[in-house]
Amino acid sequence: MIGSRLLLFPLLLISLAGLALSQDPLVNSNVRPRPLILQPATELQKLDNEEVELRCTSWRVAVEANNLGPWKTIPEECVGYVRDYMNGKGYSSDLETVSNEAGSYARSVELSGDGKDVWIFDIDDTLLSNVPYYREHSYGLEIFDQVEFDKWVDKAMAPAIEASLKLYEEVIGLGFKVFLLTGRGEKKRSVTEENLVNAGFRVWDRLILRASEDHGKMATAYKSEKRSEMVKEGYRILGNSGDQWSDLLGSAMSFRSFKLPNPMYYIP
Amino acid sequence: MIGSRLLLFPLLLISLAGLALSQDPLVNSNVRPRPLILQPATELQKLDNEEVELRCTSWRVAVEANNLGPWKTIPEECVGYVRDYMNGKGYSSDLETVSNEAGSYARSVELSGDGKDVWIFDIDDTLLSNVPYYREHSYGLEIFDQVEFDKWVDKAMAPAIEASLKLYEEVIGLGFKVFLLTGRGEKKRSVTEENLVNAGFRVWDRLILRASEDHGKMATAYKSEKRSEMVKEGYRILGNSGDQWSDLLGSAMSFRSFKLPNPMYYIP
Repeated sequence: MIGSRLLLFPLLLISLAGLALSQDPLVNSNVRPRPLILQPATELQKLDNEEVELRCTSWRVAVEANNLGPWKTIPEECVGYVRDYMNGKGYSSDLETVSNEAGSYARSVELSGDGKDVWIFDIDDTLLSNVPYYREHSYGLEIFDQVEFDKWVDKAMAPAIEASLKLYEEVIGLGFKVFLLTGRGEKKRSVTEENLVNAGFRVWDRLILRASEDHGKMATAYKSEKRSEMVKEGYRILGNSGDQWSDLLGSAMSFRSFKLPNPMYYIP
Repeated sequence: MIGSRLLLFPLLLISLAGLALSQDPLVNSNVRPRPLILQPATELQKLDNEEVELRCTSWRVAVEANNLGPWKTIPEECVGYVRDYMNGKGYSSDLETVSNEAGSYARSVELSGDGKDVWIFDIDDTLLSNVPYYREHSYGLEIFDQVEFDKWVDKAMAPAIEASLKLYEEVIGLGFKVFLLTGRGEKKRSVTEENLVNAGFRVWDRLILRASEDHGKMATAYKSEKRSEMVKEGYRILGNSGDQWSDLLGSAMSFRSFKLPNPMYYIP
């Protein structure tokens, strides 16, 4: 699957290059084509890459600013861009920037000392990284496959996102209650606990997974309900970290929210 | 002002490079310094530029994702980065991406036909560009100067942001009511109207500026109040375009919001 998709990418570049040539105002059907001065392939490729880089960066920033409507797969032209971003310095630099900002904020908060100050963390691609899974599934170019993804979750092998582990330990040290709020179902409780502990997340105050009555709810609605329940119990939600806007928006929103980067998928 | 600030930038790079050298594990006080093999200045500069590019991109994405707390000036190391972004292809590509997405959404909405469907636009750096002003004020490295900025506003010379003008004309053509909601004060009504018309924004249904009782209110509170008044009058706010999160968040939020890029300043 990934192989055939990736093959399309250079083909797309070639066809875009063809489009650019055919738009040359000197070429029309009444004029014999002038002799083409062919640019070296590497130079053409470079121009295309710059254009792809520009457009895919704009697309990624639009994702992070919550400007896009629901999307099912990443743009086909951006698969190489997303791969390079996830594996290069960009993703880890973005994670560190958000984590550092969250840490500064956490340290600035004066806690009440009554044990009711809460920091919420999402799990997938917030605490635990699914990049090893998406590396085998074209970084979001394939339509999401729940069966395949469940097999990955059952392995309990997702590594920690290091910047998040650092923040996690810091907010615990500061005295926040830590509530983990995930879209995973109750059936995944035990593998999720196993994976968290293996990755270095050793303690938490609550681990909230979707109960049977939560299945089919949109993530924004489900997570808002769970946050509202916390507020009814007297908790103050002071921080919330998630890689999806549906982790952060809705009702009973946190005083400060931290959107971790994720250009691979969108959960409404 | 801008000259002396910009002079600091290469000095900062040099001092960072010095820091990197002094952290060399082979250099400590008990060992005579080994002969330094000096890298050519251009190569050192290139490495620093890559690091600055990476960090400033992460900072900019964090701004756009509303991850940062209130900030008064851009990071000193990012002044060259912000200048290149604003004047190069990045800013215009980002503007077009957001505007195209807003246009797709606007076309997908089925309007009621009762004249109560509203699209809100902010003005400064949403419809009208203040880049010519910020070009003379170090792209946000200087602390905001209200007196100087007022002089610029009074000239009524801010050009249109072309991608926004296109969207503006499109939503009017589709039948939305267009309400302009700006943080400018009532005293600026006449120059604002003059500037809008000069820039190609010829019609609107309302132009809402801060009345005397609105002065001193945070932008989020002021704009939320104005949106709440619209909702009380029976309007449906279906779209909202602004370059600040304070244009978009709060109460009576729009069904869809569009955050235009702006790495130059932050209004809480």
